[in-house]
Amino acid sequence: MTSFKAGIRAALAVGTILAATTAFAQQGPASPAETDPVKMGWMQGSPPPPDKRITFDGGPARDWPQIRWSFAHYRELTATARVSRGSGPVAKLPVAMRTDLDAVTFIPLGKTEPMRWDAAIEAVYGDAVLVLHRGRIVYERYFGVMNADQPHVAMSVTKSYVGTLTEMLIAEGKIDESAPVSRYIPELASSGFGDATVRQLLDMTTGISSSEDYTDPNAGVAKYGVAAGMRPAPPGYAGPRAIYDYLPTVAKQGAHGAQFTYKTVNTEVLSWIIARVTGKRPHVVLSERVWSKLGTEHDADVVVDSAGSPAMGGGLNPTLRDMARFGEAMRLNGRFNGQQIVPASVVARIRAGANKEDFAKAGYKTLPGWSYKSQWWVSHNAHGAYMARGIHGQGIYIDPKAEMVIVRFASNPKAGNSNFDDISLPAYQAIAERLMGK
Amino acid sequence: MTSFKAGIRAALAVGTILAATTAFAQQGPASPAETDPVKMGWMQGSPPPPDKRITFDGGPARDWPQIRWSFAHYRELTATARVSRGSGPVAKLPVAMRTDLDAVTFIPLGKTEPMRWDAAIEAVYGDAVLVLHRGRIVYERYFGVMNADQPHVAMSVTKSYVGTLTEMLIAEGKIDESAPVSRYIPELASSGFGDATVRQLLDMTTGISSSEDYTDPNAGVAKYGVAAGMRPAPPGYAGPRAIYDYLPTVAKQGAHGAQFTYKTVNTEVLSWIIARVTGKRPHVVLSERVWSKLGTEHDADVVVDSAGSPAMGGGLNPTLRDMARFGEAMRLNGRFNGQQIVPASVVARIRAGANKEDFAKAGYKTLPGWSYKSQWWVSHNAHGAYMARGIHGQGIYIDPKAEMVIVRFASNPKAGNSNFDDISLPAYQAIAERLMGK
Repeated sequence: MTSFKAGIRAALAVGTILAATTAFAQQGPASPAETDPVKMGWMQGSPPPPDKRITFDGGPARDWPQIRWSFAHYRELTATARVSRGSGPVAKLPVAMRTDLDAVTFIPLGKTEPMRWDAAIEAVYGDAVLVLHRGRIVYERYFGVMNADQPHVAMSVTKSYVGTLTEMLIAEGKIDESAPVSRYIPELASSGFGDATVRQLLDMTTGISSSEDYTDPNAGVAKYGVAAGMRPAPPGYAGPRAIYDYLPTVAKQGAHGAQFTYKTVNTEVLSWIIARVTGKRPHVVLSERVWSKLGTEHDADVVVDSAGSPAMGGGLNPTLRDMARFGEAMRLNGRFNGQQIVPASVVARIRAGANKEDFAKAGYKTLPGWSYKSQWWVSHNAHGAYMARGIHGQGIYIDPKAEMVIVRFASNPKAGNSNFDDISLPAYQAIAERLMGK
Repeated sequence: MTSFKAGIRAALAVGTILAATTAFAQQGPASPAETDPVKMGWMQGSPPPPDKRITFDGGPARDWPQIRWSFAHYRELTATARVSRGSGPVAKLPVAMRTDLDAVTFIPLGKTEPMRWDAAIEAVYGDAVLVLHRGRIVYERYFGVMNADQPHVAMSVTKSYVGTLTEMLIAEGKIDESAPVSRYIPELASSGFGDATVRQLLDMTTGISSSEDYTDPNAGVAKYGVAAGMRPAPPGYAGPRAIYDYLPTVAKQGAHGAQFTYKTVNTEVLSWIIARVTGKRPHVVLSERVWSKLGTEHDADVVVDSAGSPAMGGGLNPTLRDMARFGEAMRLNGRFNGQQIVPASVVARIRAGANKEDFAKAGYKTLPGWSYKSQWWVSHNAHGAYMARGIHGQGIYIDPKAEMVIVRFASNPKAGNSNFDDISLPAYQAIAERLMGK
């Protein structure tokens, strides 16, 4: 009878789990715990069993839930270049862990029930989260296959590096923000970009025929992704395998300067301009001007296309702490590790944001009153917070008033951050308020 | 008339160049200067012109002279993993440059005219050369696209790391050198490797049906190369894309233990055994046990196949100085950077070499009296020199008596080192003698 009772108990327990699983299946994708990349067994064993392998061309490297592994292993899937940290000493991030943050609660947008910070990280399929307060690490967590030494793709957070570099070159007079693209890149003269200005690229107000629908394999962003080496090529693919071969094929749609429309190709044109005016590949410029000055712990990886050009629209793979160092440098108006890395005037321009009405036309329901300036997302809230954002949950959240920087890697089943801003944004605000002693 | 005379002079000058070029064309491949990768303009510009691009699958990345660029850019061509340097301080290599070494002369084997050291480096299409004497850098030169921070493929020098790791695991009792391969890798039981011993793998005395003819695209080593991600796949390739999928297909040929026969697949089986007994990928074992202890300046890159297994038969890409650190650790009987990294007994075993008669049967005319022990080439000369050797001119030359280590990267048009040992080996000996004050 004892074993019978135990059997009943076990059956009931399994039933509970099954019920939960079924509930998830009905509601949407499998849960974070169910898709933990370690538990999934992906790429484990020598060799991994065929059904546990994640391959790139022709493979599921960009499918969900496989991205829960592959986002932390981009360089093992495709060609990458090194963003050198240089040879200087590491800029130590002091540690002053806070044990109270996991229990901080907030109300998700549109909800009434409070949610805890630790639950929020899990809910968005967080892979790694770090909070800096006044330059000290007060929170740092890694999940799945992540750890402090493991790079993770930053996706469009990469764009904010490009925007910052472009603003630095504008400040130096090397790029004229009012110049048309064709002045720097004659190859784009007859493309949709030809008569757009650098400023329109920076603020994504170009009128370009390139869909950013991440669910459509035929969207412009998907074609760009394959050309850039960021996405596996579909079987039989014979299109461009280089970003600068693809960009000239992109046509105009509507007018430039009319409204904010987020298109990754804009960033790649900026990156091309950086290459043209510096005579160096953009990731080398990033290394020389920023990465090597931040006292980073590691070289970063950046995906390169078949012509050796870096995918600066989304291909940077830093470690979490190194991404935090950049956020902290921005919070400190560009001064970090004993030197002025980014001019204060550049940070000020970015923080000031752009035209909110241009932004509002794009209809981001989770970002009312925001704007997009020089490849950064600016909240215009009471704390003056601004963000670098990358699909599937990558982000740098800089809150100047709270003296806080939050960096996050994630592998959310949904691409656009708008899908889970309802959790992320109030969670960040709640942490900021806790750190401010509210 | 002046312009006519100038025209004649120009024509005569061009004629001289053409004559030199024609002479080369008759004698063999283009000269080192003619194939300098910077002058060739490969992968320069944003984007590089189509005819200056070097691509991997379907491309010329492994053709000569393109390897003069691609050997220094493997990670930009295909998937690689990181061999972490860890987080410890760099073990500084003291510098005490000697200005007299370029003028050191020697007589190439089979020749009567002396050749200078600097000419010898050029003659073998050297990309980078460094000489350590008593642990100090006395000579360091970089050519073409190389510099001190640029990794370069080490080719089969990688094997010597595998042999050393295997000997370390044997010394710890974790691997039994007399055990058959099938004990560790049941998947290979019915392959040609099944009844070979670990020792036979180490000393390359297996009888395996796999041609090491580098000029034959259908040779076993070429098939291995494609499976390992080391070589571009030919158009339409549908064979294995993973080393451990390929190895079980390799058959036996002749008897194990009869003679030395150099086959890269032996090393990959060793690497697989390392993975199996440690539960870690072999490059991680290399990092934990060796790379992170040497005080290296950089992470190394290692080519990985589609299953994430590292190409330990030839896929390591270190910087020159980091490769020198390993050589120096071996010269110092495994003790370097304040710690015993490789047991002295392991170094002693390797230095003692193997059976010279087994080796002689392989017919290496430039290596009389040598042997091959645990993936190292042992000269048995008066200096007790031994080498790690990789195709196209990669090498670590350790001369214990001269307290000297020479490391070299090259991109010779010919693969086998035997093709230019006539220059390399007497050149190394001459430098050793100069450093010994002879």
